[in-house]
Amino acid sequence: MADLLVVGSVALDSVETPFGKVQEALGGSATFFSYSASFFTPVHVVATVGDDFPEEHLKLLRDRGVDVRGLQVAPGRTFRWTGTYGYDLNEAKTLDTQLNVFADFRPTLDDYQARVPYLFLANIDPELQLQVLRQMRTRPRLVALDTMNFWIKGKRDALMRVLREVDLITINDGEARQLAEEPNLIKAARRIAALGPRTVVVKRGEYGALMVTSDRFFFVPAYPLESPFDPTGAGDTFAGGFMGVLAGEGATDEAALRRAIVYGSVVASFTVEDFSLNRLKRLSRDDIEARYRSFREMMQVELRGV
Amino acid sequence: MADLLVVGSVALDSVETPFGKVQEALGGSATFFSYSASFFTPVHVVATVGDDFPEEHLKLLRDRGVDVRGLQVAPGRTFRWTGTYGYDLNEAKTLDTQLNVFADFRPTLDDYQARVPYLFLANIDPELQLQVLRQMRTRPRLVALDTMNFWIKGKRDALMRVLREVDLITINDGEARQLAEEPNLIKAARRIAALGPRTVVVKRGEYGALMVTSDRFFFVPAYPLESPFDPTGAGDTFAGGFMGVLAGEGATDEAALRRAIVYGSVVASFTVEDFSLNRLKRLSRDDIEARYRSFREMMQVELRGV
Repeated sequence: MADLLVVGSVALDSVETPFGKVQEALGGSATFFSYSASFFTPVHVVATVGDDFPEEHLKLLRDRGVDVRGLQVAPGRTFRWTGTYGYDLNEAKTLDTQLNVFADFRPTLDDYQARVPYLFLANIDPELQLQVLRQMRTRPRLVALDTMNFWIKGKRDALMRVLREVDLITINDGEARQLAEEPNLIKAARRIAALGPRTVVVKRGEYGALMVTSDRFFFVPAYPLESPFDPTGAGDTFAGGFMGVLAGEGATDEAALRRAIVYGSVVASFTVEDFSLNRLKRLSRDDIEARYRSFREMMQVELRGV
Repeated sequence: MADLLVVGSVALDSVETPFGKVQEALGGSATFFSYSASFFTPVHVVATVGDDFPEEHLKLLRDRGVDVRGLQVAPGRTFRWTGTYGYDLNEAKTLDTQLNVFADFRPTLDDYQARVPYLFLANIDPELQLQVLRQMRTRPRLVALDTMNFWIKGKRDALMRVLREVDLITINDGEARQLAEEPNLIKAARRIAALGPRTVVVKRGEYGALMVTSDRFFFVPAYPLESPFDPTGAGDTFAGGFMGVLAGEGATDEAALRRAIVYGSVVASFTVEDFSLNRLKRLSRDDIEARYRSFREMMQVELRGV
């Protein structure tokens, strides 16, 4: 098992879906990512919170073995996000964003963090993502990055610079089209690969995920849920499971990438069953393995028997 | 190999996509279905055309071994459909429909047709689909049905009656939601299964297909095409490949259904590469097998090695 570092956000989310609502629940990309990855490998977090951040949330991460020594506590309030979803749960509508201490976040790696073999740059300002890369003292075996429409539009140049230096990108389908300026998703994925990351993982929500690596494609469906509840954090838990499995196996080959995508889909499918980390808190490795077997079964084609 | 019968439409299609247009090209559900199925099993067509129907189209089907003796030639003009697609190619906009001789179509089976073991009721009036079922002299091993929003809305009662008597339905995702009156696709598929067909095959366009059989799910992606050209007939060639493989294997078990779905997806992926049957005309069984292997490869997850 190899160490995995995530640099991202820790937030307090207020979310309303047609099925319920929650106030100031634990959220943020680094939170969902690290909690998910912790099922598979040792994971370290670099992020920032305000001095109002509840101790119980830190305990939750620590109890899962997440190394939170890189969680800087800054004077002020924690990053807060308020959003709502309609019945199809496909897209969040942001009602309010308060960056608070996150506005001044300058990720700083210690000597140990600067030598991790697996690095995930969660969805933050690409200039900060670059700052993290500049601090690495050894070239990681795998650097992956996530981004979103806000940075594609507002920080395109910085994003292009960091893309040249990463091995893998995770991105939504709509944002893949936006980044590549190409409506066809297959062409878009190939164009993104030409920008730097040799592996492009496209997240397609209820349609699962697609991985493009040179000329190979891999498709995984989303788990068929009758009652998805709240998709907040699904993409970050997907990435956490994905990177966690790769670091856990110490691998980056195609077969490992595929297993990792399925495990990422498994953890994401649990995340959407409840608000915040509520479903993940009740999750065991056995639950994960059982759903992993279901995923494989749903994709299995047998050759014709004799 | 077992005989397969399709009852449906034969039409002349005028189609415009962002990539080109075609006038009065060979189309219709029974046409796409039978041409596709002919790669896998003996297939028989019951449909109607006008006395203006070009002999070259009949020759095309005959040359593939399609039995067109059930193609009734009625005085008048052949069914004509005119439609257009936007850049996403997801949904046809119908500009003109001239039913012509198809308005008076009354499917009549001869003694041989009335005993086929595999029957596909293509997308026609559910009252006609019921008339076909009433003519069967032996219970087929598998009866499958396709339908669309027009009948779901306009002939709901007749559709419900015929659904009670079929084993399998192929349906678009949007129409599945409409038929079940349920936005969640997984719940919708289960509700449709409760209406009669024990197997529900949901066609999801660029997202592939989903099969629900009692409590089992199977997902297949769409083939990743950089330049889809015209989706007309994709659903019918999918169904033709699907039913053709089942009849060809003489099987209806889960493993065969899965192979059949992949083969259906293969033929559909070729169909959308050109107008009408143009790509299928250049297609060999070897092309089909090569793409079938690609599909399996794109869905393959290997267990962790030692």
